[in-house]
Amino acid sequence: MTTHNASSAASDDAGVTRIAVLGCGRVGHAMARDLAFTLDGQPDPQVRVTAVDARDAARDRLGEDAGDADSERPITRQTADLGDRGAVARIAAAHDLIVGAAPSHLGLAILQTVIDARRPMVDISFLPENPLPLDALAKAQGATIVVDAGVAPGMSNFILGRARADFASVERFACYVGGLPVARRWPWQYTAPFAPTDVIEEYTRPARFRQLGADVTHPPLTDPEYLEVPGIGTLEAFLTDGLRTVLDTVDDVPDMVEKTLRYPGHREQMMLLRDGGFFGDTPVTLADGATVRPIDLTAALLVDQWQTRPDDAEFTYMRCDVDAIDASEQRVRRTVAVLDHGQGGTSSMARTTGYAATALVAQLRAGAFGEAGVWPLETLPASLYAPVLDYLDARGVRYETVETTASSIG
Amino acid sequence: MTTHNASSAASDDAGVTRIAVLGCGRVGHAMARDLAFTLDGQPDPQVRVTAVDARDAARDRLGEDAGDADSERPITRQTADLGDRGAVARIAAAHDLIVGAAPSHLGLAILQTVIDARRPMVDISFLPENPLPLDALAKAQGATIVVDAGVAPGMSNFILGRARADFASVERFACYVGGLPVARRWPWQYTAPFAPTDVIEEYTRPARFRQLGADVTHPPLTDPEYLEVPGIGTLEAFLTDGLRTVLDTVDDVPDMVEKTLRYPGHREQMMLLRDGGFFGDTPVTLADGATVRPIDLTAALLVDQWQTRPDDAEFTYMRCDVDAIDASEQRVRRTVAVLDHGQGGTSSMARTTGYAATALVAQLRAGAFGEAGVWPLETLPASLYAPVLDYLDARGVRYETVETTASSIG
Repeated sequence: MTTHNASSAASDDAGVTRIAVLGCGRVGHAMARDLAFTLDGQPDPQVRVTAVDARDAARDRLGEDAGDADSERPITRQTADLGDRGAVARIAAAHDLIVGAAPSHLGLAILQTVIDARRPMVDISFLPENPLPLDALAKAQGATIVVDAGVAPGMSNFILGRARADFASVERFACYVGGLPVARRWPWQYTAPFAPTDVIEEYTRPARFRQLGADVTHPPLTDPEYLEVPGIGTLEAFLTDGLRTVLDTVDDVPDMVEKTLRYPGHREQMMLLRDGGFFGDTPVTLADGATVRPIDLTAALLVDQWQTRPDDAEFTYMRCDVDAIDASEQRVRRTVAVLDHGQGGTSSMARTTGYAATALVAQLRAGAFGEAGVWPLETLPASLYAPVLDYLDARGVRYETVETTASSIG
Repeated sequence: MTTHNASSAASDDAGVTRIAVLGCGRVGHAMARDLAFTLDGQPDPQVRVTAVDARDAARDRLGEDAGDADSERPITRQTADLGDRGAVARIAAAHDLIVGAAPSHLGLAILQTVIDARRPMVDISFLPENPLPLDALAKAQGATIVVDAGVAPGMSNFILGRARADFASVERFACYVGGLPVARRWPWQYTAPFAPTDVIEEYTRPARFRQLGADVTHPPLTDPEYLEVPGIGTLEAFLTDGLRTVLDTVDDVPDMVEKTLRYPGHREQMMLLRDGGFFGDTPVTLADGATVRPIDLTAALLVDQWQTRPDDAEFTYMRCDVDAIDASEQRVRRTVAVLDHGQGGTSSMARTTGYAATALVAQLRAGAFGEAGVWPLETLPASLYAPVLDYLDARGVRYETVETTASSIG
């Protein structure tokens, strides 16, 4: 085993970067493949990828691209309990760079373990906790930790960060994002890229946003508006608690909001279930005296109905609106939007989320960034923005930017 | 104890009719009071009413109007298990006329017991079973049994029966009916005059109706249409399985349908819950291995939310449309509608349902009808129709009839 200097992605004597992808869900799979292969489909000789999951079945879905350590396949499969800090520490020590794609409830402990192991990391576990308090530890240990490196949070934060660098001031930031099936089927018009309980959590957790300079909290699913998406039609946007770190890291933008996108109707269905008590986590007594937490039954009913079938076409759409004042005191609206339909069995959510993370892995490997600390994307150097968009573009994930000035805003 | 000749309402030597009201729910209460008192609020010396219920609390809600057998109050309270056939037989034997307002699952056994006791009866228990097969037994025993004697089924059947007597032919019969709160509150816009499980049963039982001369079955909650109700606004009507006996007793009307009325939106909510599995009666396994029938949780959640509070204004609306050909071969549309808002603490459902039954009790007592058999209202002599409407009118339950001829139908 080699020992490493932390703070940037190291590589061994042969110039090979050993990368551990923790978690082999849909996104973990897509990232392991993207890291192990070049764009023309050849194994990348500069990279050795280990795909780690507690479930053999998840690992095994990598198929012929992956094998055991001695199999010489592009991706090495490893089974480990990602909730076991000792196991994670050993994996971190044996690799040059860590990509976090574990279940969110394991995210914080994994982050701490990787920081202690002084390894650079790009994380998309979207831990429920605020990761920023780990910044001091990461700085002390000399570890570069990029967090919330997906699409939203992730690219949305990056778009805000880039705008703050580009303009004299940013007046308003609004992010609209959602992943949806192409076919709208009764009753839900929805399939979930995550577990139903994680989606429902978004519909019950109070939504924090910023309004007229003050951080405010509203019930989720409120403040609906319609959004026209070219080629898709009308979607409905509503408040969810998605801003996360920018409420802490950005203090000079007086209005910031994130909204989730669904087909019109879904929001009211979720309001009905929520306000009707079906999302409740307090046990309810039935007529026969048994007790049940409504959310447990609801999750059991929805897990099948919300499942994305392999042949279901789906897409991810995100649009960020930035209202700003430029250096010549002109009002500007910058809109950055991405619409991805998935490709070759890799879902749009895996592509938009996973390739954002692997784009940042490429920046760390290239030495473009290596400062110690915990870094959500709005805090990264704006110079990384263009290469990351180029990396995504090369994979067909295209962010389109439109700018209009005051006269056209009207 | 006196013995009685069956087949019509008997009375003892003093000309007093002893009436047992089986079941002291909201409607049972309203009927007991209506039978025991004259319209000017005085105890009717010609009637002695016994109000029977298994629950003391239900009985006791009659308040000062009722007392024990020796209390000389206008209504005598009696506690009895209405599921106990021996008890019901003893009650029947001790009374001249029976009014059935028991829970529907007890209805059939009570009907059989009363027939065996050779007592006349007016029933609004709305038993789930078809009561018509008891007709032969009732004829053999000489008992006059009027069934489904409420508003719908009940007055709706009567309106159809009257129309068949009045016109050369009836081409189409459509009944729209619903009981609703005046205030529309999120999320349900609904309070139930019955247990949620009974309402939900209407949303899950296949709806039988007649179309182009054929009896057909559609899923309930389908075939929606909007209906304008004067003073109320727009309601949404949808198929439910409400025609009951007329599908058996009426073979010369080629189109017959019954639809339930709710505020727009409720239908889709119920479709969502039904199609989402929340009305399911098959146990579902939760993540922790426990099993629960979704309908049991749904009923537990809705029983409070759908409860009508004493100070909630509510109304019952029914409209029956009859398309007919009259004796001069002219096309006629007869529309008969009732809108009742409840009065003095008696709900509109109790008034429209209960007073239809007590109106028929009055007809039996007056000797206007006493033929042995089981009689849903469409089979009663059309001559009873006007006096029943008059009886209801005297209590403020007003059926309004409008007829338009072909020229105005267009």
